[in-house]
Amino acid sequence: MHTEQLLSALSPHARDEPDSGIVKAAMYGFTVPGVIPMWAGEGNAPTPEIFTRAAVESLTKGETFYTWQRGIPELRDALARYHGRNFGRGFSHENFYVTSGGMHAIQTMIHLIAGEDDEIIIPTPAWPNYAGALRIAGSRPVEVPMSFQNGRWLLDLDRVFDAITPRTKAIALNSPSNPVGWTASRDELIAVRDACRRRGIWILGDEVYSRFFYGERGETRAPSFLDICEDEERLLLANTFSKNWAMTGWRVGWLQAPKALGPAIERIVQVSSSGTPAFLQRGCVAALDHGEEFIAAQVARARANRDLVVSKLKDIPGLRFEVPQGAFYLFFGVEGMTDSMATTLRIIDEAKVGFAPGFTFGPGGEGNLRMCYLRDPAKIAEALDRFGGWMKKKRIL
Amino acid sequence: MHTEQLLSALSPHARDEPDSGIVKAAMYGFTVPGVIPMWAGEGNAPTPEIFTRAAVESLTKGETFYTWQRGIPELRDALARYHGRNFGRGFSHENFYVTSGGMHAIQTMIHLIAGEDDEIIIPTPAWPNYAGALRIAGSRPVEVPMSFQNGRWLLDLDRVFDAITPRTKAIALNSPSNPVGWTASRDELIAVRDACRRRGIWILGDEVYSRFFYGERGETRAPSFLDICEDEERLLLANTFSKNWAMTGWRVGWLQAPKALGPAIERIVQVSSSGTPAFLQRGCVAALDHGEEFIAAQVARARANRDLVVSKLKDIPGLRFEVPQGAFYLFFGVEGMTDSMATTLRIIDEAKVGFAPGFTFGPGGEGNLRMCYLRDPAKIAEALDRFGGWMKKKRIL
Repeated sequence: MHTEQLLSALSPHARDEPDSGIVKAAMYGFTVPGVIPMWAGEGNAPTPEIFTRAAVESLTKGETFYTWQRGIPELRDALARYHGRNFGRGFSHENFYVTSGGMHAIQTMIHLIAGEDDEIIIPTPAWPNYAGALRIAGSRPVEVPMSFQNGRWLLDLDRVFDAITPRTKAIALNSPSNPVGWTASRDELIAVRDACRRRGIWILGDEVYSRFFYGERGETRAPSFLDICEDEERLLLANTFSKNWAMTGWRVGWLQAPKALGPAIERIVQVSSSGTPAFLQRGCVAALDHGEEFIAAQVARARANRDLVVSKLKDIPGLRFEVPQGAFYLFFGVEGMTDSMATTLRIIDEAKVGFAPGFTFGPGGEGNLRMCYLRDPAKIAEALDRFGGWMKKKRIL
Repeated sequence: MHTEQLLSALSPHARDEPDSGIVKAAMYGFTVPGVIPMWAGEGNAPTPEIFTRAAVESLTKGETFYTWQRGIPELRDALARYHGRNFGRGFSHENFYVTSGGMHAIQTMIHLIAGEDDEIIIPTPAWPNYAGALRIAGSRPVEVPMSFQNGRWLLDLDRVFDAITPRTKAIALNSPSNPVGWTASRDELIAVRDACRRRGIWILGDEVYSRFFYGERGETRAPSFLDICEDEERLLLANTFSKNWAMTGWRVGWLQAPKALGPAIERIVQVSSSGTPAFLQRGCVAALDHGEEFIAAQVARARANRDLVVSKLKDIPGLRFEVPQGAFYLFFGVEGMTDSMATTLRIIDEAKVGFAPGFTFGPGGEGNLRMCYLRDPAKIAEALDRFGGWMKKKRIL
């Protein structure tokens, strides 16, 4: 049977969904020797041995059976403790639901609240998987582009609120943001909360990069919806062990949600992942309980690398960017570039440097490239030297 | 905010989906000491050390990063080799896509072919997660009940084909079946294939229990769509490492699909699981390459346990069942039982035996209980003795 015949038998959502430019860059880059990879949102350090050991012990002693659909009680308790330490108030384990990665947490949020033709508002540039997961679910991302003015990314909240229609189920807010590093102030979070309360819609919060916040007053995290919302209101927060604890390849995350949603979440987990390996969850308990030093070191490294990247990029003509307030990406505009995907592949081939293409982050993204700087600084310096040399050849597409 | 207010803000799919009776039994049973659990589809043996060791080595050496969205090349190659050995012909690694469990493979199949209001035909009694995953995706399960006649479960294929409408996207066939053990003959598979080809719809095959087949001629697997179909036609097969290799808690499976679907599958994986941990996939390579003796021993044990269960149940008045041809479940009718969920919970409490309630398997399921017999035979005997004693008290609901 021919390819065309098979593809025509797919659902339109599955057939017509665009490829993620990040995945396309990474899958291509995996085949090119010598590339310095900065396409993905992950560091270059493997998971610390102290977290890994707990998983190995559990696996070795045979904890290899089906498990709790909401997560093992020990991990839910550890999540409550972790949040208690970081947010200065009490949390109940019942508001935490373990998922198979942050993406699975986002997918679960979408299945909880949105159906065919429902709308969710997303400021862009944004991680493309939000829009992709919505479209695969039959729902509609309503993208509200930020603007880049006077060297800064700005989110006009009035434009966000004006986009609310009777079909709107939620505003999704990622702060600190991937890819631009924009971070909402407490006042902006309050404005979003109040608008959502007034309209009876959900907040989908993504504070995955909360700890990677480069405030000037020694803050250890960014402002959070957890500072200003009730536990039992229309707030869903997706999170992951991937970033803080260097566990991208583990695929474990969590969803923070009202207790009342427990049975509905359990049902969605059952028909998607059917639960997250218990032995991996043991490693996550160790990460929460013993990971603070590691996080502090990672954030310090990210801050230093940010400054390194900024100093390097400043010397390359034709680039523009804001110094990010949070997360660990540099999203930079390249003068004259109109095809960031083709340019990304060309840079992989010719400069052996792996960025992610800006177009894939939605409206406002084309013309930019994204790099992840949670990497070895020597490699970053080498990558940016290579890129600087390549830029002189003016081979931009 | 009150529970009712929060629930009314959920999508109808998420709010109104019934709980899985299996999950309900298991989550309840987890809290009752001394229960002999037979609710879930898993054995009591942990994963063999030879598989586990490969995962531990990978994890320990730091293979903890994002990985191939279609699965690591080594596992796709090992899947092709495994199928070559078991199906007597050549297979390409390009037709295998690694998923985060069999359930994730099923969810991916659904997202590939079905959208809002599309229909998929499912013979019942069936594992409830098919219908659940379809409803959560906005699609519709069309259930065609088998009949229990003269002591046997029968699937009337004409009724299945008569259920095809212009909205039908696929026939889902699980053989050997969970829960009844019914196994399609080669001729029945051909009839399904021909009907699907004629109508231009997909076959969704679930041959997860293929190796657990109790033929009388030394067969090492059940008849399969792989015997009679092309690799590049409208056939999707979901499978898992859970059953054959005692890896339920690992959450790794695979999808077998036409090569042409590769990009679409990669996109769905990206916005659901974002890939399966590479270190777990190393364990699965070891399972495929070194697992044949383990499978043979498991199947022999399942066959012996089946005979043990049958001999025990025969002595309990008021039960009816067919001796299953495949899989590792005994699905038995209980005279006078009209509420299998309540009865299941009562048996957990009073007899300390954990079955799954028949109602949850769809039309034709109520009035039955399911037990998994891939367990320690001494525990099975004890469980059925307890259950036999309990049955005398006539506390059935």
